[in-house]
Amino acid sequence: MSRYVTRKFDYDKKDQLALEETLFHNANGYIGVRGNLEEGVPAAMHTMRGVYLNGVCETIPMKQAESLCNLTEEKETMVNVGDIQTVKIFIDGQEFSLFEGEKCQQTRILDMDQGTTNRDVTWNLSEGRKVKISVKKMASFVEESLFVLEYSVTAVGFDGKMKLVSYHIPEVCNYANPDDPRLAAEGASYLRTERIETRGKATGLSVTSTEKTKIKVGIMSDHQWNVRPESEEIRVENDEIIYEAIIPLESDKTSTCSKIVIFKDSIREKDVYGKLSETMDIVRKKTLDYYFESQRFFLEKFWNSSEVRIPGDEKLENALNFNIFQLLQSAPQDYYCSIAAKGLSGEGYEGHYFWDTEMFMLPFYVLSEPQVAKRLLEFRYETLGPALENAKLLGHKKGALYPWRTINGKECSGYYVSGSAAYHINGDIAYGVVQYYFATGDYQFIRDKGARILLETARLWMDVGNYHDGSFHIHGVTGPDEYTCLVDDNYYTNRIAQFNLMWAVKAARLMEEKGDFDQFSLDNKLTADELKEMEMAANAMEILYDENLKINPQDSSFLSKPLWDLEATDKSEFPLLLHYHPLHLYRYQVCKQADTVMAYYLFPDLEDQETMENSYRYYEKITTHDSSLSECIYSVVASRLGMKEKAYSYFGDSAKLDLENLHGNTKDGIHTANMGGSYIALVYGFAGLVIREEGLRFKPFLPDKWEGYSFKFQYRGKTYEFSIDKDGARVLYDGENITEADKIKILQ
Amino acid sequence: MSRYVTRKFDYDKKDQLALEETLFHNANGYIGVRGNLEEGVPAAMHTMRGVYLNGVCETIPMKQAESLCNLTEEKETMVNVGDIQTVKIFIDGQEFSLFEGEKCQQTRILDMDQGTTNRDVTWNLSEGRKVKISVKKMASFVEESLFVLEYSVTAVGFDGKMKLVSYHIPEVCNYANPDDPRLAAEGASYLRTERIETRGKATGLSVTSTEKTKIKVGIMSDHQWNVRPESEEIRVENDEIIYEAIIPLESDKTSTCSKIVIFKDSIREKDVYGKLSETMDIVRKKTLDYYFESQRFFLEKFWNSSEVRIPGDEKLENALNFNIFQLLQSAPQDYYCSIAAKGLSGEGYEGHYFWDTEMFMLPFYVLSEPQVAKRLLEFRYETLGPALENAKLLGHKKGALYPWRTINGKECSGYYVSGSAAYHINGDIAYGVVQYYFATGDYQFIRDKGARILLETARLWMDVGNYHDGSFHIHGVTGPDEYTCLVDDNYYTNRIAQFNLMWAVKAARLMEEKGDFDQFSLDNKLTADELKEMEMAANAMEILYDENLKINPQDSSFLSKPLWDLEATDKSEFPLLLHYHPLHLYRYQVCKQADTVMAYYLFPDLEDQETMENSYRYYEKITTHDSSLSECIYSVVASRLGMKEKAYSYFGDSAKLDLENLHGNTKDGIHTANMGGSYIALVYGFAGLVIREEGLRFKPFLPDKWEGYSFKFQYRGKTYEFSIDKDGARVLYDGENITEADKIKILQ
Repeated sequence: MSRYVTRKFDYDKKDQLALEETLFHNANGYIGVRGNLEEGVPAAMHTMRGVYLNGVCETIPMKQAESLCNLTEEKETMVNVGDIQTVKIFIDGQEFSLFEGEKCQQTRILDMDQGTTNRDVTWNLSEGRKVKISVKKMASFVEESLFVLEYSVTAVGFDGKMKLVSYHIPEVCNYANPDDPRLAAEGASYLRTERIETRGKATGLSVTSTEKTKIKVGIMSDHQWNVRPESEEIRVENDEIIYEAIIPLESDKTSTCSKIVIFKDSIREKDVYGKLSETMDIVRKKTLDYYFESQRFFLEKFWNSSEVRIPGDEKLENALNFNIFQLLQSAPQDYYCSIAAKGLSGEGYEGHYFWDTEMFMLPFYVLSEPQVAKRLLEFRYETLGPALENAKLLGHKKGALYPWRTINGKECSGYYVSGSAAYHINGDIAYGVVQYYFATGDYQFIRDKGARILLETARLWMDVGNYHDGSFHIHGVTGPDEYTCLVDDNYYTNRIAQFNLMWAVKAARLMEEKGDFDQFSLDNKLTADELKEMEMAANAMEILYDENLKINPQDSSFLSKPLWDLEATDKSEFPLLLHYHPLHLYRYQVCKQADTVMAYYLFPDLEDQETMENSYRYYEKITTHDSSLSECIYSVVASRLGMKEKAYSYFGDSAKLDLENLHGNTKDGIHTANMGGSYIALVYGFAGLVIREEGLRFKPFLPDKWEGYSFKFQYRGKTYEFSIDKDGARVLYDGENITEADKIKILQ
Repeated sequence: MSRYVTRKFDYDKKDQLALEETLFHNANGYIGVRGNLEEGVPAAMHTMRGVYLNGVCETIPMKQAESLCNLTEEKETMVNVGDIQTVKIFIDGQEFSLFEGEKCQQTRILDMDQGTTNRDVTWNLSEGRKVKISVKKMASFVEESLFVLEYSVTAVGFDGKMKLVSYHIPEVCNYANPDDPRLAAEGASYLRTERIETRGKATGLSVTSTEKTKIKVGIMSDHQWNVRPESEEIRVENDEIIYEAIIPLESDKTSTCSKIVIFKDSIREKDVYGKLSETMDIVRKKTLDYYFESQRFFLEKFWNSSEVRIPGDEKLENALNFNIFQLLQSAPQDYYCSIAAKGLSGEGYEGHYFWDTEMFMLPFYVLSEPQVAKRLLEFRYETLGPALENAKLLGHKKGALYPWRTINGKECSGYYVSGSAAYHINGDIAYGVVQYYFATGDYQFIRDKGARILLETARLWMDVGNYHDGSFHIHGVTGPDEYTCLVDDNYYTNRIAQFNLMWAVKAARLMEEKGDFDQFSLDNKLTADELKEMEMAANAMEILYDENLKINPQDSSFLSKPLWDLEATDKSEFPLLLHYHPLHLYRYQVCKQADTVMAYYLFPDLEDQETMENSYRYYEKITTHDSSLSECIYSVVASRLGMKEKAYSYFGDSAKLDLENLHGNTKDGIHTANMGGSYIALVYGFAGLVIREEGLRFKPFLPDKWEGYSFKFQYRGKTYEFSIDKDGARVLYDGENITEADKIKILQ
């Protein structure tokens, strides 16, 4: 079975170009290259031309309309690091373009087994001549700094002469939407050239740097041919490196130019300039074939441990594996960065990392790529410093508050009401730490890094909360639902804070057992009293319950607000956030996304079935799913509550969101969190997986429309396969039934 | 007795210059001229050089850090309309400056009987020569477009030659604070010259206009001498009009140049250009003596009906009359404008009008200048259109929502959390309408304008509130206390909304009695059912009471928050808003200003004494008075509750706030609301005045330190005098005791 996504170009579909730039982007967690047309597009067409390196960002001002104490007034933004995609060809003087002359036939393919994208064009030249163009691109999973672009040209039944011009442009602009008056008409350029040079006839090299963050970016490009060029030269012109080659085209013979590009940055390398040549030499030596081949091997291994199968529903299966592949493309190769809301596929949300990572993506990595899960959590550990600083800015006397949106660890949210006030991110990260620990048993991580995250996040809850009438209350925060902000005792927040506090204590106990506590307590000025207070607060946490409706209220005032009548709301008014002032939304019982229901997903055993069912039905009626993070959670909780139809329906919408562009904005980048969410809906929902301290528990069901489904996962260092069909569910290890020692239970 | 304020210039006091620019500004409700030194100041000195015309503003962008639906993204700002103050003199070639050569002696006087400011300088020239300079300025109360600057020079015991250069600069910049990085280093200039010309030898004329609001400003300046100039000329140079005269100075004889300036704008006049000459001709014909004299007459009349006396405490008496005089200087002469937070004395708060007008200033005008009170309410009527529009932007289906800060009626608040969300402004305006009606019996105003204000503001409450558990709730608003935002059932808001709803109904009934209801209901699509619903909601209004503390909670969640320990807070941390993130402040029981306590001032009969006393003591402990609107209210309620010492102490701080620069920021402009507040503290507090439908009620007391106090006031067209001494209180009309028909009661 081969896994791929393909699209034929349709001249009549207006947004297809930008949409395909996202769908066919190449990324390896470090490099992200939008799937732009190499030759460029006419000026009037909507395109976002970009190459990104995970973590490479610039600080830009973000003025507040009214200045208040410690409001965020600058932010990081992901930098477009250069244009290395642009390749133009001229055959007998005629320049190739998809949009001039007779229409071309174009097919694009994302090959998820080879780890490449392919673009195949039949170009109809003048006088009935045809040329086949084929472009293969790869961001290597094996050598993270390597991107390859292979440009192949075949003149069909005629001889000709081709000029190929390839660009390496170190200073480019970030995306600007001319329709949005709040953006500059011209996008900003954040890099300044420090060094630009050529070597020999086919190699270019540039080093640029940002002004504020002082990050250097190095790019080296090289060109190789399978035929001998009649002539070739490379030159620097207006701060651009331009490579030109003349190739005699022989009828029906394919001429291929392989453009090898190496990226380095000063976040990861001291000697950016030197490392470029060093890596290029290694790559040249190993040859590109090696990298194409090792890419295939890498993916074979990946699919062997991560693939999902849904026999009989190829479409959904493919959608889900597409999502999984994108999670792989987004996965960092080190702890200097995390995963942006749009991965490395576009500039939506400016490349910022959110709670999306821990809550929606981590559950996949924990089961499929635990080393990625670890890196993601290590990133949070590495940015504990700015989180401690952020807590101080918010007035707290102790603890760390993780930023709502960030690249380098600092808060980048300009609207604190649904940004910094979403304190639950602290608990979300703590939850991620513990899930990772449960799934891997990696005590060393807890001891060295995790426990400190748990402690400092827990300390914040102690500072933010207060006792009143015997309960521990959390005032003035915003839960996951961004249509209800600055509330008291948000159910989700209090639950995750409770967990956070409990696990700060549990981690300490664990270290006590292992003899590591004394050092830890010394390093962190932690006393037994402080732990006791945390435990007390966790136990006294205010958990709201409404006797009348028999549900958990979203927060202390939610149920006294008027209900928003979603059925009576015109379709054109969605998403509500684009049509209503936030103050208006906040005044109603209306939810952008799962909030209380999301808490049930995380903590399936803390409320009785009746309460969860009542709440589910109550909140579902007032949830708009205007956030792409909503439906997957409604699916997983529906599964858990036995609402199979609902679970299936929500799952489908979530799985196909980007592939079918269901939210209409995939052109700005993939919805990475939702991709993880669709995985969650299947594995944690349909299969009913719960990861606990004492082991895994599945409580699976098979959707009526399916014959079965299966997926691979890793647990404590071993790769298992879960499968279910009409005959029941099973988990196999190496083809054999598991034993008690595997600590995996299936409740049939 | 003469009323004046005087200050000797002290070279060692750093901020005195800017402070005096405020204290000695000239205004008449239309024109405001900062008390700048005519000759200018050295570049390094802090100065705000400005002339303002009430209502003349420009629209400027106010970008939000993150864009959300219908957030305000532009605002009005008061425009500095030109420089007509600059006059330089040169004697025998030496230029006058306060800051070069030997130090000068300077005394400034605000003469509140003459309605002028005077600046008297002894300038020590080289070679032991002395020159007396005297500058008198006046903004005429009689001719609103007239400003006069008389520049007099006397050479003491020597003959000399003087050159006087007088400027008329139509394009100037608004103030920019170079220490504030959020302001442009260079202030913006909002006017473009359309016409600039000279006439004869001493007259200049300019017409400028704003780009966005398209307001034209016309200025005409003329120069007259009491001596014959040796030569004079006027010219246009670089878009500035420059007048130059050479005067032979005869020993000990005073030469005076009278600069007459006329201002016109297109808000009020169609033919700005034409009206300038027309008014100038009238002024020239009547002579300046006439205007100086009529200014004195005007003030004699004013003080006869408005003066406050505190025999034996001249200092406080003078402070209070200074405040009253500033209220007069700020009082609009028409309904095209209102009163800015800083009056016309400076650019603090950008010339915006707030609830300050109705809640803190109107109580003075209602009793002293009812025609001003009417104009202020008419301004709200005239801006009902934008208020209806504003309600729509906030998502409401009906009603009007007045802007929190505005110049032309549109919302100019960039931070809606403590801006637009302060819905109580609707009720504040409604309260003002009703107080005006009670004090004047002006039914015609209710019928023609007031009832519509009451109706549309009441309609908003019906849309914003909802029933829950049998009560009518108001969610997601911000009360007066800006340290606690976006709350539910704020006591103050619910009380004022209740009043607003009741009075929409009462006004309708009143019109029914008078036979005017049918037309009104037709014009406003008002049904009996709608009124019934309003009455029901008013009666069902949620009014919080805490059984335990026996107080009215500020809002539904206030009492469950932790108490801020103000005593343990270091003095350097005040005002808290400059040291704590808003989110942090919102999470504590801490008040910037009177909130629940303020409701007791407005509605003294709705809670029992015990509840009010308990609340007062509870909130006082957690109120920082970081707002200048707080102490006056704490004073008035202390009076009402019989806490005489507290009442007196809060009163003193309020009365002297600007005169003694107690908040340290009077340089940016006067605190007009607090000036009204100090009047309230005396009249509504010490004298215990309550204005009710059935008449006035005084419940006075005499502070222990005083021998007595008295004030004049108007009620239903007659001027009364209230006085109190050790023998008791009395109200006299025309020197005689009042009768039952006067409907004024004193509870001794």
